Amino acid sequence: MIAFEKALELVLNNSASFGEVTLPLDKAVGRILAEDVFADRDFPPFNRATKDGIAIHYESVSNAFSKFKIQDTAAAGSPQLQLFNTSDCIEVMTGAMVPINCDTVIMYEHLVIESGFATLLKPVKKGQNIHVKGSDEPKGVKVLERGIQISASEIGVLASVGKAVLKVKKNPRISIVSTGDELVNVHEFPKAHQIRKSNSHTLKAALIDKGIASEMVHIPDEKVKTKEVISKLLLTSDVILLSGGVSKGKYDYLPEVFEELNITKVFHKVRQRPGKPFWFGSHEESKTTVFGFPGNPVSTFANFNIYFLPWLDKSLMGVVKKEITVILEEEFENTTDLTRFIRAKLVLKNGKTRAQLIEGNGSGDLTSLTKSDGFLKVPPNKKCIKGAKVSFLPTRRIL
Amino acid sequence: MIAFEKALELVLNNSASFGEVTLPLDKAVGRILAEDVFADRDFPPFNRATKDGIAIHYESVSNAFSKFKIQDTAAAGSPQLQLFNTSDCIEVMTGAMVPINCDTVIMYEHLVIESGFATLLKPVKKGQNIHVKGSDEPKGVKVLERGIQISASEIGVLASVGKAVLKVKKNPRISIVSTGDELVNVHEFPKAHQIRKSNSHTLKAALIDKGIASEMVHIPDEKVKTKEVISKLLLTSDVILLSGGVSKGKYDYLPEVFEELNITKVFHKVRQRPGKPFWFGSHEESKTTVFGFPGNPVSTFANFNIYFLPWLDKSLMGVVKKEITVILEEEFENTTDLTRFIRAKLVLKNGKTRAQLIEGNGSGDLTSLTKSDGFLKVPPNKKCIKGAKVSFLPTRRIL
Repeated sequence: MIAFEKALELVLNNSASFGEVTLPLDKAVGRILAEDVFADRDFPPFNRATKDGIAIHYESVSNAFSKFKIQDTAAAGSPQLQLFNTSDCIEVMTGAMVPINCDTVIMYEHLVIESGFATLLKPVKKGQNIHVKGSDEPKGVKVLERGIQISASEIGVLASVGKAVLKVKKNPRISIVSTGDELVNVHEFPKAHQIRKSNSHTLKAALIDKGIASEMVHIPDEKVKTKEVISKLLLTSDVILLSGGVSKGKYDYLPEVFEELNITKVFHKVRQRPGKPFWFGSHEESKTTVFGFPGNPVSTFANFNIYFLPWLDKSLMGVVKKEITVILEEEFENTTDLTRFIRAKLVLKNGKTRAQLIEGNGSGDLTSLTKSDGFLKVPPNKKCIKGAKVSFLPTRRIL
Repeated sequence: MIAFEKALELVLNNSASFGEVTLPLDKAVGRILAEDVFADRDFPPFNRATKDGIAIHYESVSNAFSKFKIQDTAAAGSPQLQLFNTSDCIEVMTGAMVPINCDTVIMYEHLVIESGFATLLKPVKKGQNIHVKGSDEPKGVKVLERGIQISASEIGVLASVGKAVLKVKKNPRISIVSTGDELVNVHEFPKAHQIRKSNSHTLKAALIDKGIASEMVHIPDEKVKTKEVISKLLLTSDVILLSGGVSKGKYDYLPEVFEELNITKVFHKVRQRPGKPFWFGSHEESKTTVFGFPGNPVSTFANFNIYFLPWLDKSLMGVVKKEITVILEEEFENTTDLTRFIRAKLVLKNGKTRAQLIEGNGSGDLTSLTKSDGFLKVPPNKKCIKGAKVSFLPTRRIL
């Protein structure tokens, strides 16, 4: 049995790579960018009017109430016009190119337009209401770095520089395996000694939230069948996530089967609660990584968040998300020599992030997870006073 | 022109309803639950062994080293066994029903098993390692409330109570309309006076992140065509999101077209920056809500987050997410009479949520959005000192 920190380190040291794939822009949100992206033009590409009004040659403003003859109108999307007489003006629409010989834009709200003339109502500042060519980013500059996650804001930039298709990291092919003869399908009514499958649905949903599809498989508590199914999954999966079958039970065949299939054990069992009997390893030949989570719902869900998601981030982005710390709202003492993961609800208020402990009834208590936002991590034999800073692992979207 | 608070209030007062739909469990993640969900059995449904080991009748423990004859083995998923002689024991596997006449489970780690007998190595506590029937939630209790958002944790509970299909709120049918003759498609190379479409891709991506599909449409700066397209979209859309065409420009036909199509204007223009020329209204006959965002990329994106997402939450969940406040890392003074939305990056550290201002180059500066996590909201004519608490609107997943 190893310490939690060591287990996490070993998991992260065994991060994997799933290659890259080219996707159309509108399919890329949520994915990890696999190429550097450069501005193919200046940002913005021309001196762009940012208001509807008139464009003038600033030197021609004699006083606050100067009057300009309107030469023409520059629409957004029309080729650049030229102001022939610098004491005249050209009407410009937002998004239009500022005409040649113009350097200042005055919005309609600060003008009177009458009989082909525009008269100023307010003083004017040279250069106002022009988004200057290249002022955000010059052509050729790197606007997005490989390894970032693509959100809506990045999609806007990608569209602007013409990335109709782009390279992103491939997601892993994931198989979710449930074990245990007590399990029946969700649509079935369980007998007295049975329960419905829930872990595999929870994991599938958590993966969907990350934009990753997965396959669900059930195997009975029967060694030959277990071995047969796992050996097939090795051929088609980058990752196998299992729940159950890794404890000390008589029908917990998984560790044996893993060994027989040459899946190298990195470790089995961690000094933590919940989630102690966690089995982690990888299959060299197929490059499949195997996460054998203990079967209790809270244990499976905790270890998925504690180990699998950081492993995924490391594998796709090369880095792990920064740990966040929160303020404990009530005292908590960990009297065990295990790292404990305590269900908690976050309250974001007045610039502070506070955590309220959620009363949980052991690692089988599924409903307690719906009341919590994540897990506090409390080191072994550690007393945390009210107000202490404790590290926190979110398990749902909070912001 | 109205104040920001008034505008938001009017938008929220015009929330809509899109009905309900029945979905299979695995499609429901991220959706809003449209029914109360009850436990169809006790949680857990039987006294469940939480460790692999033996089950005993506690009264039979005479001392710390008591020895028990093994009568049988109770596997998970097997019908309940009965301990016939209360001084014997039954081996039990995690997840199994605790046998009749047993009330305590001892794990293998605290036992020696030899020649059909189990001998205790440690003192035993009555009732240990049993997850008691109904102790999490009794049968009939409401385990999930309509109106909540379904995350992975809720999927686990829904699976447990047999909700293979469930009622969720229908998402709105959304059309995203880009306007402006300066726009070309992402795969095209723009002429000097043109730029590529980006707003509609940004909005589409932001909706995908919310699990909502949408249709993209472009209309030229031409009134007849504009009217024709919008009138068709009213028939097929619960929401129309437009960018551009709502300012004072000569080719900003939208407000006129909206009026001619009997789309009721709730307001046009808000005392805010960016995003001032925002047009908001709804079409009574088709029940379509129309958000006419100004065309600058930062304005469109800000108003989508400021108005549309809270409107969507109100429409689907009946409530708006709680506002969060963060700590300002540097002084900021709003010297205008407009509510200002300032790009900022969040730093979560030591239980505090701090915001760093992002230098932005006006409302056309698309790349600045990729550097920020959201917008600070600063009221008109307000000086915020370093350390001030300011309300913050996240625009990407941070936790």
